[in-house]
Amino acid sequence: MRPSGRTASQIRPVTITRHYTCHAEGSVLVEFGNTKVLCNATVEEGVPRFMKGQGKGWITAEYSMLPRATHTRSQREAARGKQGGRTLEIQRLIARSLRAAVDLKLLGENTITIDCDVIQADGGTRTASITGACVALVDALTHMRNKGILKANPLKFMVAALSVGIYEGAPVADLEYVEDSAAETDMNVVMTETGKLIEVQGTAEGEPFSFDELQELLDIAKHGLRELFDIQKAALN
Amino acid sequence: MRPSGRTASQIRPVTITRHYTCHAEGSVLVEFGNTKVLCNATVEEGVPRFMKGQGKGWITAEYSMLPRATHTRSQREAARGKQGGRTLEIQRLIARSLRAAVDLKLLGENTITIDCDVIQADGGTRTASITGACVALVDALTHMRNKGILKANPLKFMVAALSVGIYEGAPVADLEYVEDSAAETDMNVVMTETGKLIEVQGTAEGEPFSFDELQELLDIAKHGLRELFDIQKAALN
Amino acid sequence: MRPSGRTASQIRPVTITRHYTCHAEGSVLVEFGNTKVLCNATVEEGVPRFMKGQGKGWITAEYSMLPRATHTRSQREAARGKQGGRTLEIQRLIARSLRAAVDLKLLGENTITIDCDVIQADGGTRTASITGACVALVDALTHMRNKGILKANPLKFMVAALSVGIYEGAPVADLEYVEDSAAETDMNVVMTETGKLIEVQGTAEGEPFSFDELQELLDIAKHGLRELFDIQKAALN
Amino acid sequence: MRPSGRTASQIRPVTITRHYTCHAEGSVLVEFGNTKVLCNATVEEGVPRFMKGQGKGWITAEYSMLPRATHTRSQREAARGKQGGRTLEIQRLIARSLRAAVDLKLLGENTITIDCDVIQADGGTRTASITGACVALVDALTHMRNKGILKANPLKFMVAALSVGIYEGAPVADLEYVEDSAAETDMNVVMTETGKLIEVQGTAEGEPFSFDELQELLDIAKHGLRELFDIQKAALN
Amino acid sequence: MRPSGRTASQIRPVTITRHYTCHAEGSVLVEFGNTKVLCNATVEEGVPRFMKGQGKGWITAEYSMLPRATHTRSQREAARGKQGGRTLEIQRLIARSLRAAVDLKLLGENTITIDCDVIQADGGTRTASITGACVALVDALTHMRNKGILKANPLKFMVAALSVGIYEGAPVADLEYVEDSAAETDMNVVMTETGKLIEVQGTAEGEPFSFDELQELLDIAKHGLRELFDIQKAALN
Amino acid sequence: MRPSGRTASQIRPVTITRHYTCHAEGSVLVEFGNTKVLCNATVEEGVPRFMKGQGKGWITAEYSMLPRATHTRSQREAARGKQGGRTLEIQRLIARSLRAAVDLKLLGENTITIDCDVIQADGGTRTASITGACVALVDALTHMRNKGILKANPLKFMVAALSVGIYEGAPVADLEYVEDSAAETDMNVVMTETGKLIEVQGTAEGEPFSFDELQELLDIAKHGLRELFDIQKAALN
Repeated sequence: MRPSGRTASQIRPVTITRHYTCHAEGSVLVEFGNTKVLCNATVEEGVPRFMKGQGKGWITAEYSMLPRATHTRSQREAARGKQGGRTLEIQRLIARSLRAAVDLKLLGENTITIDCDVIQADGGTRTASITGACVALVDALTHMRNKGILKANPLKFMVAALSVGIYEGAPVADLEYVEDSAAETDMNVVMTETGKLIEVQGTAEGEPFSFDELQELLDIAKHGLRELFDIQKAALN
Repeated sequence: MRPSGRTASQIRPVTITRHYTCHAEGSVLVEFGNTKVLCNATVEEGVPRFMKGQGKGWITAEYSMLPRATHTRSQREAARGKQGGRTLEIQRLIARSLRAAVDLKLLGENTITIDCDVIQADGGTRTASITGACVALVDALTHMRNKGILKANPLKFMVAALSVGIYEGAPVADLEYVEDSAAETDMNVVMTETGKLIEVQGTAEGEPFSFDELQELLDIAKHGLRELFDIQKAALN
Repeated sequence: MRPSGRTASQIRPVTITRHYTCHAEGSVLVEFGNTKVLCNATVEEGVPRFMKGQGKGWITAEYSMLPRATHTRSQREAARGKQGGRTLEIQRLIARSLRAAVDLKLLGENTITIDCDVIQADGGTRTASITGACVALVDALTHMRNKGILKANPLKFMVAALSVGIYEGAPVADLEYVEDSAAETDMNVVMTETGKLIEVQGTAEGEPFSFDELQELLDIAKHGLRELFDIQKAALN
Repeated sequence: MRPSGRTASQIRPVTITRHYTCHAEGSVLVEFGNTKVLCNATVEEGVPRFMKGQGKGWITAEYSMLPRATHTRSQREAARGKQGGRTLEIQRLIARSLRAAVDLKLLGENTITIDCDVIQADGGTRTASITGACVALVDALTHMRNKGILKANPLKFMVAALSVGIYEGAPVADLEYVEDSAAETDMNVVMTETGKLIEVQGTAEGEPFSFDELQELLDIAKHGLRELFDIQKAALN
Repeated sequence: MRPSGRTASQIRPVTITRHYTCHAEGSVLVEFGNTKVLCNATVEEGVPRFMKGQGKGWITAEYSMLPRATHTRSQREAARGKQGGRTLEIQRLIARSLRAAVDLKLLGENTITIDCDVIQADGGTRTASITGACVALVDALTHMRNKGILKANPLKFMVAALSVGIYEGAPVADLEYVEDSAAETDMNVVMTETGKLIEVQGTAEGEPFSFDELQELLDIAKHGLRELFDIQKAALN
Repeated sequence: MRPSGRTASQIRPVTITRHYTCHAEGSVLVEFGNTKVLCNATVEEGVPRFMKGQGKGWITAEYSMLPRATHTRSQREAARGKQGGRTLEIQRLIARSLRAAVDLKLLGENTITIDCDVIQADGGTRTASITGACVALVDALTHMRNKGILKANPLKFMVAALSVGIYEGAPVADLEYVEDSAAETDMNVVMTETGKLIEVQGTAEGEPFSFDELQELLDIAKHGLRELFDIQKAALN
């Protein structure tokens, strides 16, 4: 039924490659099928001006698609001279999701910047970014502990994210591009490994959806997210 | 318990003033308590380039806060030279919500632009904007029918939006600023008058929220939204 | 003769509503007929870098038209990414006019920013802005005195502004849009309540004007400005 | 009394050098004492979009100061990424002044762009620009007639401009920088050779000025402008 | 002597991986030791405005470093709102080099855009980009021939590029970052497989260099470039 | 053979006029035939942030063409809102060339900014800029010594620059525009008066060039540069 032959709740093969580049304190290539995102975590001393003097750290994120990550080339935002609304929206989501996972007090006045650069896109780039970025974040925190910058582990719990949607009338998990572009409803769910929600963003692309359909989407998301937490853990061991 | 003395599910007094300014085809001042947003709908012939030749119309939105709509002055985006991520995110949400309410084919190759300018802010500006903008949209569509531009009414159903959140541990509706800034979870719900969902955006500002809490927030939102549809209808009669 | 039936020197009904919004230290809605401008005065500690250490205050202004303040929608400057020449010219004029009214030494190292946002335009928005902004400025100064920030009143005199022009060969006061767009000469006069000039800007839109016509325009302006000072005073009592 | 020893109404030595650069259709170096502005007029076929199909031409202007035209270096606007308010205000003034001198219908659908680049500044750069630009415009129009682009001469009259001001209590003409920076009132007058006004812009920099002082400034300006028209004519012969 | 133990003329291990991403018409990951650049070639119908109607094609390039490609994070150009001088300089060099390799007439009115995104940087990113981009270009041209867009092969010859420099007094080839940042002279050489030069850019970073040293640098470059052509050929078979 | 009748190695008449404007610490108008560039050197206390605390000075440069320096008008970069790649490339080259000529330690924590503004262009504007800028730099350094800002002369040697190229198959020096636009190869050479190289930038505009042709171009450049050093010296005496 699904173009890939997957069952409704089946996610794509997910791989997480740590230490993908050599300079970043955390560097992860995350792949959800053909979607490939490089997530680099950078540790810097100090915090942005609006956070100064509170004894707390900061986590921020930037997101970008390489111009030819997609079927047709999209204009480079650096050449256009500004980041689009979609980009800003996604990087704000990634940053909020990761900040929710960290005790900023334990981080001290340090900033971690997560760069999520989409090498190849096939749907679900923002949820793949969050899932990969959390692993890069863990590596960056470990680096900080090894360097003696942190005394305690500021991580409260792992976070992962999954896209779900209503495709041809039925709820499905982890939509690839051909499904995503035809989906009536699209929902991104960011969850903690403790089973709580950080972010739920459901959007009717075509027809509005019912409260019951929302429920079904949440159920299917919860199930797929459990798998993602297992994959994150395996990657970290 | 709530700063205003309201019950958990009680929304603020809402007023909708039509024909607020004299030039726009639809012009509504919407007030949710101290939150006041001017929603102007402009009708223009033609559609953006990416929509040309499909025989369909387009609805777009722009959102802005006057610099001193808030307690402290925020920098004017025109002076800064770019719109911030929050602005872009909100105007994309408003536009998506209104497009969902309209049969774009029946609109013909015309564009309706909704400008939502926040005169005074006290929480819930984006949901007030959607609620008011839908009324301005109806007035603009009526104008188009009166002018003979439209043969049939493209409106599929009214849409309204409400913010709900978890404040001091309990779900409440229509948060004003003091509640909003202290809320653990913040959720915006865009619904149709037929009781279906167009958009659900829930965000943990502090602690993550459970699936049960999400359920409670949805229930309280549905209740308040029913009231908003009554107020919209009253305003349109 | 005039579209409105007014006499040559007759200004439109002018209303000044103080405390129009709740957050700003001075907040005035000024209406010259159908022209409506919201003037918010914001008080902030400190001065811009180029003024630091001189023991003097600063007054600045920003001006904007809501996109649909006019007959047809104009592009939002924040979306375009820059303020146009007309906007910059007007806000520089407003700021100069108000600075002339204030003893900056008595203001101390504080900044007052006046935001003039045109809600609805029907000619004369810049002169209405100055006239309303001066009242908002007075309210902001009163606020500062009440808070003990100022020891003495830095206001030297009230200022008001009026547009005059040559319409169908005759000098008229307070042009509305239909007159303004057809006027051969357009002049803005900023005056003090003591009858002196702060700014005179006369422009031939069509045929050049004679020195005698300039004289007539100044006379008619002086007359109308006297009325504006009475209206300001009434509003402040 | 004046730093230069000039009498109150005496203007500085003015020289107008035509054909200063070799590519422009009109190219004039204008010098008012130490103020030196290069005015290049460029003729191009066609008009901006908003003028198309009206059978009329267009005249526009751009103004810039070389970074080190002044005592201390000012930041290059191209490097800053935008033109300042002063620049936009001046180039709008130059363009309006020259458009007033030309019958745009006789110009046909052609555009003349006047670039005024200040090589060295010592007060009065905008009025020198207008005075020199009018000569460059005449050369460009002659070029167009020689090329057969124009059938009739679209020039209605020469225009020139002069700055006057109140310096140490007395009205003076053609202020140089040391006077300008200390002047209480500063006024720019753009006049036609037929003795009519195109633009009058008077600004109180310090104390407001009286209607009588305005009169004296206009008188002194008229006198100096007569001299400028003689110098323009001499240069054109 | 060299940090890596390489001989003066020895280049780093170079690998060229074709079909690295799935959407681009040509997609190459090129690695010079730890320098890794993704070169994607996009084929689009039509040419930029300034090339229209000449019956010729166009080749352009864009270059970017991922923010954490380097030891410390550099600011994302899309977030800064403009591309830096170094970026523009490099992408102009890449584009010129590739255009030199192609008969633009045989390309027809089509555009090939080469995106060079540096995943990891360790010196020589611009020369690696050119070397990899040429292979991506060949794949894109093959794609066009397979699609019937091209009748003849527009490739005139392969091009490759190598950085050479004077490090600790001696000429060396293919500098890695530690050498590059300490080099007295840095030179980039772009050559054709037929042994001719497309671009030579030598810069004294510290002391000026002699004409003899220039000669030695050219010799060492020529030698290394021969190897690069072999590697390109092997990758294409 | 050459359009100007010059021999292959003959440079155009070069004149260097010092003290061309009155405000800059060094101000030179340099003319290579019809190419005229104004080079102003500004001395300012302090250094950019990235240089602070090293006890060293900084030299930077900005380059611009007046819009009508060329045959057809080019858009003003300040109006476009950004400097183009060509501009950035040239100003980086000028700055690097001058920094190579100066012992930055002896300069102390001072910055010299060289503004090169092209008044009229006829090929070779970047090399004329460097040649003239070096003389302006010398005047600025003399000014600093006279003011007691410098104890020793930081100038290590004069620098000059020349463009050479292959025009109609033969190497020629100092190309004017008609040659430049038809040249197959274009090369800019920056040399010290001691006969060493600071920068060599050779580009094949049409056919690639051989190593032998590169050699011939270098020979012809060296010869012309000797003449330029004589002209610089004469100007400085």
